[in-house]
Amino acid sequence: MPRTPVQAYALLLDESRQVALLESCGAVLGWDEQTYMPPGGAEHRSNQLSLLAGIGHERATSPLIGELLAELEASPLGTENDTPESANLREIRRDYDRATKLPKRLVEELSKTTSLAQQAWVSARKLRDFSLFLPWLEQVVTLKRETAQAIGFGSGVPYDALLDEFEPGVTAADVTKLFDALRSELVPLIAAIRESGKRPNHEILTRLYPIAAQREFSMSAAQAIGFSFEEGRLDIAHHPFCSGFGPGDCRLTTRYDEHHFPGAFFGTLHEAGHGMYEQGLDRTHYGSPLGRACSLAIHESQSRLWENLVGRSRSFWNRMYPAAQTAFPEALARTSLDDFYGAINDVQPSYIRVEADEATYNLHILLRFDIERPLISGDLAPADVPGVWNEMFTKYLGITPTHDSEGCLQDIHWSAGLVGYFPTYSLGNMCGSQFFEAAQRDLGDLNAQFAAGEFQPLKSWLNEKIHRHGRRYHALDLVQRVTGEPLSPAPLMRHLKAKYAALYGV
Amino acid sequence: MPRTPVQAYALLLDESRQVALLESCGAVLGWDEQTYMPPGGAEHRSNQLSLLAGIGHERATSPLIGELLAELEASPLGTENDTPESANLREIRRDYDRATKLPKRLVEELSKTTSLAQQAWVSARKLRDFSLFLPWLEQVVTLKRETAQAIGFGSGVPYDALLDEFEPGVTAADVTKLFDALRSELVPLIAAIRESGKRPNHEILTRLYPIAAQREFSMSAAQAIGFSFEEGRLDIAHHPFCSGFGPGDCRLTTRYDEHHFPGAFFGTLHEAGHGMYEQGLDRTHYGSPLGRACSLAIHESQSRLWENLVGRSRSFWNRMYPAAQTAFPEALARTSLDDFYGAINDVQPSYIRVEADEATYNLHILLRFDIERPLISGDLAPADVPGVWNEMFTKYLGITPTHDSEGCLQDIHWSAGLVGYFPTYSLGNMCGSQFFEAAQRDLGDLNAQFAAGEFQPLKSWLNEKIHRHGRRYHALDLVQRVTGEPLSPAPLMRHLKAKYAALYGV
Repeated sequence: MPRTPVQAYALLLDESRQVALLESCGAVLGWDEQTYMPPGGAEHRSNQLSLLAGIGHERATSPLIGELLAELEASPLGTENDTPESANLREIRRDYDRATKLPKRLVEELSKTTSLAQQAWVSARKLRDFSLFLPWLEQVVTLKRETAQAIGFGSGVPYDALLDEFEPGVTAADVTKLFDALRSELVPLIAAIRESGKRPNHEILTRLYPIAAQREFSMSAAQAIGFSFEEGRLDIAHHPFCSGFGPGDCRLTTRYDEHHFPGAFFGTLHEAGHGMYEQGLDRTHYGSPLGRACSLAIHESQSRLWENLVGRSRSFWNRMYPAAQTAFPEALARTSLDDFYGAINDVQPSYIRVEADEATYNLHILLRFDIERPLISGDLAPADVPGVWNEMFTKYLGITPTHDSEGCLQDIHWSAGLVGYFPTYSLGNMCGSQFFEAAQRDLGDLNAQFAAGEFQPLKSWLNEKIHRHGRRYHALDLVQRVTGEPLSPAPLMRHLKAKYAALYGV
Repeated sequence: MPRTPVQAYALLLDESRQVALLESCGAVLGWDEQTYMPPGGAEHRSNQLSLLAGIGHERATSPLIGELLAELEASPLGTENDTPESANLREIRRDYDRATKLPKRLVEELSKTTSLAQQAWVSARKLRDFSLFLPWLEQVVTLKRETAQAIGFGSGVPYDALLDEFEPGVTAADVTKLFDALRSELVPLIAAIRESGKRPNHEILTRLYPIAAQREFSMSAAQAIGFSFEEGRLDIAHHPFCSGFGPGDCRLTTRYDEHHFPGAFFGTLHEAGHGMYEQGLDRTHYGSPLGRACSLAIHESQSRLWENLVGRSRSFWNRMYPAAQTAFPEALARTSLDDFYGAINDVQPSYIRVEADEATYNLHILLRFDIERPLISGDLAPADVPGVWNEMFTKYLGITPTHDSEGCLQDIHWSAGLVGYFPTYSLGNMCGSQFFEAAQRDLGDLNAQFAAGEFQPLKSWLNEKIHRHGRRYHALDLVQRVTGEPLSPAPLMRHLKAKYAALYGV
């Protein structure tokens, strides 16, 4: 007896759920590796993870999924427009095609090469010696070009095939247009701030902030904005991240420096933003694309929104500053809110992306995008990356790295094979601001709400408008649907201009 | 081209290793569940674990393993005597037969029933109401009887098929003989202690022992005896356990009560004993039976040896007591070593097995064994367990439980389907004492070594004589090989008599 489309769809979702569950087992092991695993466990852990990845890949590329997809795509379930089922089928097809298009040889070679390249990158960065990393960058670039060919690109631009891994449906042309518009306004704004001659007192943030108090204060803030610790945790990791294991369990990590307040605090708000997205996914769709985050840009829009638009706002600190003074009496008891607020919004060109402020951060991303594209097209040789990096950095930020470890060697991404990933950070900043403006239109004066300690309306709005849809719409469609307009850098620039007009008189 | 036995053996070990790796992924998830998982994660975790268990079972029962085994058993590799290969084949066959003999229906029913039975047990214990648990105990017993039939038993005793799961090669007749001999000496010894009228000052152990200091002191003791924290951790769990994830990664857990010193301290030494076994396994055999612990009794021999024969010895505290006084000045600064040593060796009949002292502990086990056998043979109805329990308890320990939660409802084992598990605790106590006497013959005065802080000789001896063999020999053979004599309760009784002669003049 042949199966009905409904039966086939149920089978397909069951396969999809098993792949997701296997991935989530790997996520637990990965989290433990970064948080609690003793040093001696590294080799065994990599054996465990590699077995799980192998089984997961086997399941994700099983011919059964291909058969079910073909059957369903020809059925009414697959041809209806804009139904949950058609969205799931579209996205499962997308994942299946990406997974099956890559030859096993290439997958294995990428895995092996990037594992060794990351080790080489660690040494090269430590020794500030790009030449140690160059042969590995060359290999990674070659393999990523091959990847692009295997995946295919209708646009004629190989980079699109890589970008599409992280940001489905977005092309280099889309990014270029958005980034050009952003650059044209951001560069003069940063120059104006620089020329204003005003500098906040940054020393405020490097006083003694005892770690136990930082932990408690960060957690109370994460809880206040809506992260549920009934269904999550905050632990310490050298490289902070958020990992959503699945329904009811989302792990945040951060790191503490008792003489640097912003690191752990804004880091925790940032990860809590990611975490609230994971906690806001529709559990009834767990294991299918509709129960999974839309894209990296949309994920980053949530983290940046809570970190910057909420956490670095004046209204947020109107509410939180008294508690901060109580938590850190030695550092803040005799410091005014104005001075503190100025310090956490210091704009200052700097070399390291992850330490950059809210404004200059985006220039770090534009630069990486401008280097990645020609690297993949073949117009830029890996050996020429340091020269081009320093030249562009000087042009964008007005300062020149003195060595490659504060230049092109600073990020792990390329060594890990993550090419096409960087743009999602700035796309996320733009999406976050555009969502925030839309929320403000729907919910009234958000800043007044923050000052009153009310974060629930914004959180519920994000749950409703963004989280619960999962991968139903691609990022650019989602932005259009939620905000009524195509994605644009205008809301981000309006936000930055307003904030810095008040702080720097620019 | 047909494969050679060497090729087939390599294939078989690879299959075995994948099953072990999958199990070890489950171990990480299980550890996290008991230590750090937020409450909301429980349902998702059980879905993850059940998928892993399913995939693991599928791999463990794959026809390929059966084919390889049949091929190898007929080859020279399988017919040689006492080689590593023949031992691996014997044990892989054992596991494969046990796994394939159980019908899938029975495995699933056991898993479902014991999961619900555990929940019922929790309620029943809380409400002190055996009748709530009775229907579940009846179901579990029925399923375990079926299990015994499916596995088979050459001896005519169904219980043997269950015991064999935890203690390969040991029969109820073996246990009965050993336990009868133990009982005949232990009951009068405990009675004599009771009649001596001497009681140590137990209050010493319930003073204030701050948790941070307990943790540090326990860890330093675990490290001193040889547990490696480079390859392990100590965390908090409600039900303490040790989980060896694999080479280089072994996790201990304990729980703290700031007004009860022995719980966390001896608990940590106990788990560290298990952990040192795991850390002492031969890594080159990881994934095959030769790289896995021999049996539950041998595992327990290691934990009890370090907990009791080392950790509760006078010589150990000759060395450690000054550090204990420094760690816990408020509790111990004005308490003599004699009084402290007396308190940690208090012998006193009590209701709860896990809180029992070194001597009476074994009576709790004898009792359970005497109930389990007729339960499985059908000579004892589940409904009659409370009555029989209380009657036997009174006979053995001279006190009568006032309700079933301090009687037959106290342990999780039966609700979890673990029938045939209890005897391994006392077998472990016997093995531990017998190993200790043998080590003393080989290494000289161990107590003098402990008093000098030298634990490495004993640890290395255990590594060499026991740990590195994995499952090469079954427990009774291993005891014979290591100590030159068959397993007997005599060494345990010699140890207890000597200790209590000094303490109680008996």
